[in-house]
Amino acid sequence: MNFKSDNEAPAHPRILDALIEANRDFATAYGDDRWSRRLDDAFSELFETRCRVLPLATGTAANSVTLAALTPAWGAVLCHRQAHIHCDEGGAPEFYTHGAKLMPLEGDHGKLVPPILAAAIDGAGTHGVHNVAPAVVSITQATECGTAYRPGEIEALSEVARSRGLPLHMDGARFANAVAHLGVAPADVTWRAGVDVLSFGATKNGALTAEAIVVFEDRFATGPLDHSLEAVLEAMARMRKRGGHLLSKMRYVSSQLLAMLDDGLWLDLARTANARAARLAEAIDRHSEAELAWPVEANEVFMRWTPEALAALKQQGFEFHLWPGHDDLARLVCAFSTTDEAVDGLIAALDRAIP
Amino acid sequence: MNFKSDNEAPAHPRILDALIEANRDFATAYGDDRWSRRLDDAFSELFETRCRVLPLATGTAANSVTLAALTPAWGAVLCHRQAHIHCDEGGAPEFYTHGAKLMPLEGDHGKLVPPILAAAIDGAGTHGVHNVAPAVVSITQATECGTAYRPGEIEALSEVARSRGLPLHMDGARFANAVAHLGVAPADVTWRAGVDVLSFGATKNGALTAEAIVVFEDRFATGPLDHSLEAVLEAMARMRKRGGHLLSKMRYVSSQLLAMLDDGLWLDLARTANARAARLAEAIDRHSEAELAWPVEANEVFMRWTPEALAALKQQGFEFHLWPGHDDLARLVCAFSTTDEAVDGLIAALDRAIP
Amino acid sequence: MNFKSDNEAPAHPRILDALIEANRDFATAYGDDRWSRRLDDAFSELFETRCRVLPLATGTAANSVTLAALTPAWGAVLCHRQAHIHCDEGGAPEFYTHGAKLMPLEGDHGKLVPPILAAAIDGAGTHGVHNVAPAVVSITQATECGTAYRPGEIEALSEVARSRGLPLHMDGARFANAVAHLGVAPADVTWRAGVDVLSFGATKNGALTAEAIVVFEDRFATGPLDHSLEAVLEAMARMRKRGGHLLSKMRYVSSQLLAMLDDGLWLDLARTANARAARLAEAIDRHSEAELAWPVEANEVFMRWTPEALAALKQQGFEFHLWPGHDDLARLVCAFSTTDEAVDGLIAALDRAIP
Amino acid sequence: MNFKSDNEAPAHPRILDALIEANRDFATAYGDDRWSRRLDDAFSELFETRCRVLPLATGTAANSVTLAALTPAWGAVLCHRQAHIHCDEGGAPEFYTHGAKLMPLEGDHGKLVPPILAAAIDGAGTHGVHNVAPAVVSITQATECGTAYRPGEIEALSEVARSRGLPLHMDGARFANAVAHLGVAPADVTWRAGVDVLSFGATKNGALTAEAIVVFEDRFATGPLDHSLEAVLEAMARMRKRGGHLLSKMRYVSSQLLAMLDDGLWLDLARTANARAARLAEAIDRHSEAELAWPVEANEVFMRWTPEALAALKQQGFEFHLWPGHDDLARLVCAFSTTDEAVDGLIAALDRAIP
Repeated sequence: MNFKSDNEAPAHPRILDALIEANRDFATAYGDDRWSRRLDDAFSELFETRCRVLPLATGTAANSVTLAALTPAWGAVLCHRQAHIHCDEGGAPEFYTHGAKLMPLEGDHGKLVPPILAAAIDGAGTHGVHNVAPAVVSITQATECGTAYRPGEIEALSEVARSRGLPLHMDGARFANAVAHLGVAPADVTWRAGVDVLSFGATKNGALTAEAIVVFEDRFATGPLDHSLEAVLEAMARMRKRGGHLLSKMRYVSSQLLAMLDDGLWLDLARTANARAARLAEAIDRHSEAELAWPVEANEVFMRWTPEALAALKQQGFEFHLWPGHDDLARLVCAFSTTDEAVDGLIAALDRAIP
Repeated sequence: MNFKSDNEAPAHPRILDALIEANRDFATAYGDDRWSRRLDDAFSELFETRCRVLPLATGTAANSVTLAALTPAWGAVLCHRQAHIHCDEGGAPEFYTHGAKLMPLEGDHGKLVPPILAAAIDGAGTHGVHNVAPAVVSITQATECGTAYRPGEIEALSEVARSRGLPLHMDGARFANAVAHLGVAPADVTWRAGVDVLSFGATKNGALTAEAIVVFEDRFATGPLDHSLEAVLEAMARMRKRGGHLLSKMRYVSSQLLAMLDDGLWLDLARTANARAARLAEAIDRHSEAELAWPVEANEVFMRWTPEALAALKQQGFEFHLWPGHDDLARLVCAFSTTDEAVDGLIAALDRAIP
Repeated sequence: MNFKSDNEAPAHPRILDALIEANRDFATAYGDDRWSRRLDDAFSELFETRCRVLPLATGTAANSVTLAALTPAWGAVLCHRQAHIHCDEGGAPEFYTHGAKLMPLEGDHGKLVPPILAAAIDGAGTHGVHNVAPAVVSITQATECGTAYRPGEIEALSEVARSRGLPLHMDGARFANAVAHLGVAPADVTWRAGVDVLSFGATKNGALTAEAIVVFEDRFATGPLDHSLEAVLEAMARMRKRGGHLLSKMRYVSSQLLAMLDDGLWLDLARTANARAARLAEAIDRHSEAELAWPVEANEVFMRWTPEALAALKQQGFEFHLWPGHDDLARLVCAFSTTDEAVDGLIAALDRAIP
Repeated sequence: MNFKSDNEAPAHPRILDALIEANRDFATAYGDDRWSRRLDDAFSELFETRCRVLPLATGTAANSVTLAALTPAWGAVLCHRQAHIHCDEGGAPEFYTHGAKLMPLEGDHGKLVPPILAAAIDGAGTHGVHNVAPAVVSITQATECGTAYRPGEIEALSEVARSRGLPLHMDGARFANAVAHLGVAPADVTWRAGVDVLSFGATKNGALTAEAIVVFEDRFATGPLDHSLEAVLEAMARMRKRGGHLLSKMRYVSSQLLAMLDDGLWLDLARTANARAARLAEAIDRHSEAELAWPVEANEVFMRWTPEALAALKQQGFEFHLWPGHDDLARLVCAFSTTDEAVDGLIAALDRAIP
C-alpha cells in the first residue's frame, strides 16, 4: 500500500478523457492551440481576477521560471529552510536565476513568519553590491510540513515583502489540498492576501503532468514593485523556451489543466485525498505511542514513532518515506486514489502495534 | 489542410492506449517506474548495442542537456548554420551550457561537410584561452532541409570530429523519417557511423510529447574522447533535474517511447508521413513553375514558387510556413496523420495553378 | 624589436607617478576614494556631456559588464565577425550575459555597415521566443583592422540600431588612437554620433592596467531604449562586483585614468603611436612587394607579404603576430614607446628585402 | 585614524619599486612575461612543494575561479556561515560556478569544526539529483573573526572532506597574518595539513592589488579526489579569461607578488600589522567595560562595547566598521602602515572613556 507520494498515484480518468478529446485533430503548436488559449479565462474565472497563465510540465520548472522572472542574478530568494525550492530541486532555481542565492529562514510548521522575514530582508543587502539583494519571497501552500497558511498569515507576509518592494511567490504544488482544507476561495489565499504569482500544481493532484504559472495581473498594476507585468511575462515566456519547456504540443498539458478546473474536479480530488489523510491523522492522534509531528492540514501526515515501529510497518508492506535525516519520522501521503482500504489497513496496523 | 508542422498533428491512438495502460496503478516516481526502467533494454535492442536512455518531454531539452554534458562553458558547438539548435531554440543550448558558443558552418542541403568542419575545428582555438575551445559537433538527421545523411557521410564527419577529440551528437527530431527513407538499420546511421549521443525524437512522429537521449555506451569505452561514460551520464541526470525535466510521473513519457518502439510503430508512422511527402514532391517536380528547393528525403517538402502563387495556395486553405526571410519558399510538412485527401487536394491546387 | 602588441609596451612614467602620488595615505576602499569619485567629472569634461564612469582593470571586463547590462540572457549582440568580443575574449561576453548569442556580421575593413546591420536585426527575432532577441549593437573603435569609423558612419549605425530600440556600444580599446587619427572631439565619435556606452581603453595606450565604462547619461534620458539609466548603472555595478572586478584599492586604477586625462596625455600618447605606424605604413606602401591589407588609421599596420619574407623578418629579430589563419598577413603594432629606431630598423629591413 | 580596513592602507614602497622595475621595457602579454613565469618557482620554494600559480587582481576572483574549478554547477560549497565568499562577495561564487549552492555552517570563532562539517556533508546529497551534491569545503585563514586555524584543526577538517572525496580550499585573504601569528611554516597550515588550493592574498597586506591562486600539485596526484590536476588548471585558466581576469600586462600583478615573497616582506608586513593589533587587544582586555569578542590571532580586533561608547570613539575621529547587524561590536583592523601613534591614540581614548 503506497503512502510514498501523490506523485506515485495514477491520473484521474477525466484527465485521460481530456487528452483523448484534445487529440482529435491538428492544432496549432507551441501553445497557440485552443486549449492553451482558454487558460487565461479559465483561471481568471476561478480566481475572480484577471490572470495570465503559462502551462508547463513540471513544478520545478514553474517555480524556477517564476523566480527567474522576479529576481536578478544578484538577488536573493527568501524562503523557509525546508522549502522544496531550496532542498529538493537539485539547484534548479539557482540554474534558472543564473545564481541567485536562496536564503533559508526558520519558522515552525514549515511556515515563514513576519518578524523573521522582516529581519532577514532588513539585515541583508545593507552592504550594497557586497551583498546579494533581497528580491523575492517564496512560500509553499500547503507547506512542506503538510500545514496550510491562513489568509491572514499570508497577508502579513505579503505586507512585509511588498512594503520592501519584494513580490510574493507561492509554490502551490499542493495548493488544491490547502484550499480544500481551509474551505476558502482560491482568491482568499492568493492575490487577495497579497500573492503576486502562483505555481499552480495539478500533477500531484491527479493529472499526468501539468502545472501552471498564474500571474495575477492587477498585482503588478500598482504599488511598490519594480517589475512591470509586461517585463515579467516576457521573461517567463523567454525562460520557458530557453529551459526547453515550451512544449510543441502544448495542448496536451493545457487540456489537463482545463479538465482539472472543469466542474471543480481539482477541489474534489483534493478533498478526497485530504479526507484520507485526516482519518489517518485521527488514528495516530489517538495512538498512545506514535504522534503527529505537525497539524494535518492537507494530504500529508507526518508521524513520529520509533525507528523499530516504522521499520515494522514497512515490513508489513506499507510504503512511505522517512523525513531526510530522521529515522523516527514518517511521511505518509494520501492521493485521491488512496483507497479507504489502504487507510483502514494502516490504521489496523497501528492498532495492532500498540502494546 | 495543415502542412504547417508535424508538431501540429495529433498523437497516434496506440500512444494514448499506452498512457491508459500505464495509468492503472501507483508507480514509483522520478523515472524509477517499470516503463522507464525498460528503456535501456528497449533501445539497446533497437540499436543493437548497449544504450543508456534518458526520457524527456521536449527535443529542445534533449539537445540542450546533451550538449551541456559534452562541452564546458568555454567550449564551442560546431553545427550547420541552419541547425535548429542554433536558430530555433531561443538560446536553450547557450542556457544549459552556461554560455558555450554555437559555431555555425556552411554546407549544402543542410548538411555539414568534412573539409569545412575540419577547417573550422582546426582554425578555432589556436589562440588558447583567448578563443573558445571546439568541444562537440552536432548534426541533424533528417536535416532542417528535409535531407538525410548517408552512413558514409556521417562516418566521414565522425572521423573529422573524433580524430580531434570531439564527440558527435545527432539531433534526431526526425530521426525516424531519415531511417525510413534510407532503409538502413538505426545503428547504421548512429553509433556504427560514429554518432556518440542521439536525441531520439518521438513527438513529431506521433507521440504526445516524448523524446529520449540515447547514449551509445561503447562509444565512450575507448578512443580519444575526454569524457567518461559515467561523467556524461551524471551530468545529463543532473542537468535534466536542474532544467526541471525530471518528471515526477515519468512513466507517462516512457510508456509513449515504449509504445513507439513496440512492433516498429515508429518506423511505420515515419514511412506513412514520408510517403505523403514523396507523392507531393513528385507532383511539384513535374510542375513547370514550382520547384523543389532540396531533395525530399524525409517528411518535409520545400517548394520554391512565386510569392503570389504561395499566397494563393494559402487563400485556398492550405496552411504552411514560409522559410524565414524567404517569401518564395514554402515548407510543407507531412505527418503520419496527413491524409491522402489532403495531399490530393494540394496536388490538385498546384495543377490548377499551372497556366 | 617588438611590434607584437601595445599590450607588451611598458606604462608611461606619468602613470607610475600618479600611482606613487595616490599611495601616500589611507583611502576609502571599493571605489569610494577621492580619485574614483573624480572620474565622473573628469570624463564629463572630456566628453562635454554628463558621464557616469565605472573603472575596471581589463577591457574584457569592461566590454562584458557593459553588454550584460544591455542584453537579457535571451538576447543577441550584433557585432562584426572579427570583433574582439566575438573572437578573442574566450567567451567572456557569453559568461557575463549568461549565454546571450553573439551574432557576427560581415563588413569591409572591420566595420559594420548599415544595410547589413539593419537586415540582420530585422531578420532575427521574427519567430518570437524561438529566436534570440536582438538586444544591442557593438562596434570597435579603432576597429580590429586598424581602421577608424567616421562620425557619419557611426551615426548611420546608431540610427539603424536606435530606431529598432537597440543601444549602441563602442569597444574603445584603442579609442585614443582613433580620435587622434580623426582629429575630432571625443564627443564627435561617441554620444554625438549615437553611442550610448563606451569602453574607454587606457591599458594599450600606456597605462599599467586601467579601463573605464563610460555611460552617456543623456542618451538614456529619452528615446526608444528600454533601459533606464538607473537600471543600467545598477546592473553594471552588480556585475562588476559579481565578476570580481570591484577592486578594494580602486584608487590605483582610477588614478591611472585621471593621469591619462590630465593635460591630454591620452591623446599625446596615441598620436605618438599613430605617427610611428603611419611612417611604417608609408614605407610599406612604397614597397613593390609587401602591401597594406587595410588603411592605417590608428596604431596598427597590417602588412601582406609572402610567408617567406615575413619569416625572414622574424629571423632578423622583428617580433610580430600573424593574423590568425593567414601566414601572409602580419600585424605590426606601434605603442607610444615604440622608438623611431625600431621603426627605422623595420623600414630598412623592408628596403633590404626588395629584390 | 583609520581602523576601517587593511584595504584602505597604502601599498608598501617596495611594491611600488617592483612596479617601476618591471616597467623598464616591453614584455610578453597575458602572463607569459618573466615575472609571471617565475611565480611557480617562487611559491614552490616558499611552500616547500611543487605549486602552480595563477596571478589575479582580486581575492573575489581568486576565490570564485577556484571554487568554479572544483565544483560542478549542481554542487555545494560548504563554508562557515560568516565566510566572506558567502556574505560579502555579492554572489561572485554563484556567478562563476553557474549557480552552485553555498551551504553555510555554524562554528565558534568563525571556524568550521569537523563534526558539523561531517554531518552536513553526510546529510546533504542523500536524495540523489534532487539535492545539490557536496563538492568542496572552503575555510578562511585567518577567519572572518580574526582567529587562526591551527595545523591540527585544518588537518581534521581535511580528513573529513577528503575521506568523502571533497577537496579543501583556503581563502587566504589574510593568510600572512595567520602564518605570522602561528609562527609556523606556510606549508604547515596548507598542503601539509590537507589544503588543496589556496587563495593567497597580498592586497590587504601591502600590495596595490595582487592575489594568487596556489594549487598544490601533489595533492591532486593521488587520493580520492575526482579532479585531475590538468582539468583543474585548465578550468582555472579558462574561467580566469572568461571572467576578464587575464590581465594583458600581467607583469604588474606578478611583480608585486614576487616583491612580497622577496626576503620575507609578506611576513614582515603581517607581523607589523599583527603587533599593532595585539597591543590594541591587550589594552581592551585590561579594560573594565569593553571586551574582546574573539581571540585576536591576526590583524583584526573585534571589540564589544556599548553603542554609545563606540559612537563616542567615532566622534573623536577613530574610523572603523560595526559588525553587520550589531551596533555594539566594532571591527578594528590594523595594517602594516597603522602607526604606533594611531594605536596609542585609540588606547588613550579607551582609557579616557573608563569611568
